[in-house]
Amino acid sequence: MTAIVEPVARLIEALSRLPGIGPKSAQRLTYHLLRAPEAEARSLAAALVAVRDEVVFCDVCFNISTGPECPICLDPARDASRLCVVEEPLDVLALERSGAYRGRYHVLHGAISPMDGIGPDRLRIRELLGRVADQEREGAPFVEVVLATNPTLEGEATAMYLAERLTGHVGSVTRIARGIPVGGDLEYADEVTLVRALQGRRELEVAGER
Amino acid sequence: MTAIVEPVARLIEALSRLPGIGPKSAQRLTYHLLRAPEAEARSLAAALVAVRDEVVFCDVCFNISTGPECPICLDPARDASRLCVVEEPLDVLALERSGAYRGRYHVLHGAISPMDGIGPDRLRIRELLGRVADQEREGAPFVEVVLATNPTLEGEATAMYLAERLTGHVGSVTRIARGIPVGGDLEYADEVTLVRALQGRRELEVAGER
Repeated sequence: MTAIVEPVARLIEALSRLPGIGPKSAQRLTYHLLRAPEAEARSLAAALVAVRDEVVFCDVCFNISTGPECPICLDPARDASRLCVVEEPLDVLALERSGAYRGRYHVLHGAISPMDGIGPDRLRIRELLGRVADQEREGAPFVEVVLATNPTLEGEATAMYLAERLTGHVGSVTRIARGIPVGGDLEYADEVTLVRALQGRRELEVAGER
Repeated sequence: MTAIVEPVARLIEALSRLPGIGPKSAQRLTYHLLRAPEAEARSLAAALVAVRDEVVFCDVCFNISTGPECPICLDPARDASRLCVVEEPLDVLALERSGAYRGRYHVLHGAISPMDGIGPDRLRIRELLGRVADQEREGAPFVEVVLATNPTLEGEATAMYLAERLTGHVGSVTRIARGIPVGGDLEYADEVTLVRALQGRRELEVAGER
């Protein structure tokens, strides 16, 4: 096509390789970047390079980090006796936003999925078991390991797999609650979620009764 | 937030400034780029820089180009007596894909929109009128100027504005048809489109009758 010059075609192609960006969005983004202030395109390019140059995974928990250990692993204010196991660094971010957890993390970088050929050896499970064993050996086993993998087929399988291996080596192995999301509607909830919501029901503590 | 390292935060921020990419998508893209092959992030960064370094707008038609004149303006096989006026370079791309137009283009880089403070002086209208005047002066006025601005309020206003200024200086001023899109459904068409579709109706030529 004579209408499209080579550098533009190349950027469209590079953008459309990103997940969730189709050829049409890639075109629109490219033309936006062509017309946006020069600094915008350049700072995006610089940020891309910096992310690959400066970001590594934490040697301890495999969360993203700029040094050998991530800020959470280095933070002495965090409860080192609790571990929360998640699939992805994005999950750490989400949990941190909630502000409801003050322990450490372990990022698996995926979930067990035989269908996709992802076995336990493809994930950071050996390292997790190593951390647990180290703590045990030092006479200070983890008080709790929270399994916060996604409530999907793969996430549940991973949680089951880990629970089997961790039980007896840590104080307790827990699983995050599955149920109706806050603001959600029972009417539209799927059956499996309703089953989980019922199974996970808790006694209401009425104020003044205790 | 301690969980997010600076280069990652910077890339998320740069990506979420792009149109149509919210903070959640920016996060997902960033983590994709972190885990994708190194070459993918680098080639995207290089493509971004190249687009700004190598791409300019054509001096004649203001379409994107790598040289002072774009491939379409330089192509001697294109019909130089016809001009198609569009809002954006993406519109040139779309029309070229259709294969139904073989003349030259003029890209306005927007449409008249008093609400957004965009008057005719903010667009490449002076240059368009200059091209038309030059051809007239040379005794070879354009045979046709196709107004292919979008069928939006702004695009229609721009077309009306241009039609007034061009009539008498070119052979004919035409407007692209507005109607039901091919594959579309009358039932779901809005009233304005139906009005346009009826106004633009044409006699059917029955095979063998002529």
